Amino acid sequence: MTEQPATGASERRNLADAGLTRAVAASFDSTPDPRLRAVLQALVRHLHAFASEVELTEDEWFAGIRFLTRTGHKCDDKRQEFVMASDVLGLSMLVIGINHRHPTGATESTVFGPFFVEGSRAFENGDDLANGAPGIPCHVRGVVRSVTGDPIPGAHLEIWQADEDGRYDVQYEGLDEPRGRGHLHADDQGRYSFWTVHPAAYPIPTDGPVGELLEAARRSPMRPAHIHFMVTAPGYQTLITHVFDEADEHLDTDAVFGVRSSLVATFHRHDGGAGPDGRQMSDAWSSLEFDLVLARD
Amino acid sequence: MTEQPATGASERRNLADAGLTRAVAASFDSTPDPRLRAVLQALVRHLHAFASEVELTEDEWFAGIRFLTRTGHKCDDKRQEFVMASDVLGLSMLVIGINHRHPTGATESTVFGPFFVEGSRAFENGDDLANGAPGIPCHVRGVVRSVTGDPIPGAHLEIWQADEDGRYDVQYEGLDEPRGRGHLHADDQGRYSFWTVHPAAYPIPTDGPVGELLEAARRSPMRPAHIHFMVTAPGYQTLITHVFDEADEHLDTDAVFGVRSSLVATFHRHDGGAGPDGRQMSDAWSSLEFDLVLARD
Repeated sequence: MTEQPATGASERRNLADAGLTRAVAASFDSTPDPRLRAVLQALVRHLHAFASEVELTEDEWFAGIRFLTRTGHKCDDKRQEFVMASDVLGLSMLVIGINHRHPTGATESTVFGPFFVEGSRAFENGDDLANGAPGIPCHVRGVVRSVTGDPIPGAHLEIWQADEDGRYDVQYEGLDEPRGRGHLHADDQGRYSFWTVHPAAYPIPTDGPVGELLEAARRSPMRPAHIHFMVTAPGYQTLITHVFDEADEHLDTDAVFGVRSSLVATFHRHDGGAGPDGRQMSDAWSSLEFDLVLARD
Repeated sequence: MTEQPATGASERRNLADAGLTRAVAASFDSTPDPRLRAVLQALVRHLHAFASEVELTEDEWFAGIRFLTRTGHKCDDKRQEFVMASDVLGLSMLVIGINHRHPTGATESTVFGPFFVEGSRAFENGDDLANGAPGIPCHVRGVVRSVTGDPIPGAHLEIWQADEDGRYDVQYEGLDEPRGRGHLHADDQGRYSFWTVHPAAYPIPTDGPVGELLEAARRSPMRPAHIHFMVTAPGYQTLITHVFDEADEHLDTDAVFGVRSSLVATFHRHDGGAGPDGRQMSDAWSSLEFDLVLARD
C-alpha cells in the first residue's frame, strides 16, 4: 500500500472521520464548474459534521433514508413534499433571506410553497378567479410598480390560494379544474384587480412524511391565511410573495416561518352593498388593496 | 408587534439568518423524544450553516429540490438511489465508522449498498447461488466465529454480488429470478460454503441523479470487485460487509470509499481440476476462503 494523500485519484482505503471527510471533499476536486465544486464540498463538510456531532446511529441513518424515499414518493405534479420539508426546516426562508439581503424598497419575498401549478388559466382584470371555490367573495386590487413609483404596465401576476376550508384546488380528490388560481396582466397603468374568495388559515398537508415529522415534534402545521403572488416583468426581479390577513391568529406561529410584517394587510370586511367594480353584493364580502413593488434586475 | 424571544410558541415574524436558525431549532423544543429533538435541532443548525456559508441561491435551492425529488422517484423495491447518494457522499462510511469505532477483533463493516433485496432464496451449504449468472465459477468458504474463536453454529448469511459483467440480477430488465444472491446457514461447526461466479468490478448505476452528479464532478463510478455478506446470529452484532478481490485495480478509488485493507482477500485462480468439494472443473475457476468474525451484542 503506497503512502499518498487522500485525494480523488489516490489512496482511499481505511478512511474514517476527518480523513474520510477530507477524502470525500477531495473527490470533488476535479469538478469543472467551480461553483458546483464549492457547493458540493461544503455540503460534504456540513453533512459529515452533522452526522459526527450527533453520532448518528445506523438505525437513524436508515430512518433518514426511508424519510427521504417516502418524501420523494409523495411528490408529483401537484404535490412537492421536499419543498414542504425545506419550508418547515426554515431552509426556504433562510435562502430567501440570503438572496434578498439588501432592502430595495421592493415588496418582500416569502416562501414559494408546495402548491404552485404550472400553466394556470388566463384571466382579465376584474375577472373572478374563484371558479366555485367555497368562501365569501373577496375583491383584490393594487398597482404593480417599481421602487421609484413607476407603474409597470403589463406585469404578469400568478395568483393562487386556499379557500375558506383552508384547501387548495389541487387538494380536492377528483377536482380537475383550477379554483382560486390563475394568471392575469396588469393594465397599461400597472393596475391589477380580481375577485376571488376570502382565504382561510390552513394546516400544511399532514398526510405525508413532513406531517409525521411535525406530529413527532408536536409542532403545529398551521399557516396564517394568505394569497400567493408571483409577479414577473421584463427588466425586474421576479417577486414571489404572499399577502397575509392581519386578522389571522396564526401570524406569529407560521409553520414555515414565512411572515413578514410588511406583508400583513387589512382585508376589509363588508356586509353587502356595492363592490369596488359596482358588483352588487347581498351577503358578506371582503376587499384588499395591496401594491406589488418590484426591484430592477 | 410585541417584543418576544423567537421561540416555537411565540413571535415568528421577520426572521432571518441566525435569528431564523434559532427560531427553527426552538420550534422543535417540545419534541417528546429527547434523542429525536437533539438530532432535528442539530440538523437545522448544520443545514442552515451549509446554506449560509455558500450563500445558496434560489436557483441552486430549487436544483437541490429537483435532485432530491428525482432521486426519490428513482427509488423502488430494487433500487435505492438515496443509499447510493449517501454512499458517494461518504456519509454511509462515516456512519459505519461512528458506530464501529472500537476495534473488537471482529470483521470490519462496510457499506450496505443499494442492491440488497429482502426475502432472498434459501440455499444449503455447498449449493451454487449463481443460478446462471455469467462468470467463471467461484467457490467460497470459511467459518463464522466469535472474536474469541468459537464457531457460531447456524449463523445466518445473506450473500449478494455482481456477475462477470459487473451487474446485479436486479439490474437486468425482465429477469425475474435471483442470480448471485441467496441466504444459507453455517453448519454445526460454524462452517459455510457455496459456489457462485467470480465477481467483477462495476460502475454504480449511472442512469439516475447520482450518476449525473458523478458525471458533473468527473468522478469515477467504479467499485472494486466484491461479494456482499450480511451475517446475523443471536447474541451477536449484525455484520454487514464485503470481501474484495485483491487483484482489482479499483481498490484505491472506490466510488463509495468502502475499502478496508482487512476486507481485501485473495481469490485464487485455477485452471480446471477438482474443486474443494470434488466438483470436476474443465475450465478456469476461482476460490476464496474468508472467515467472518462477529462481535457480541
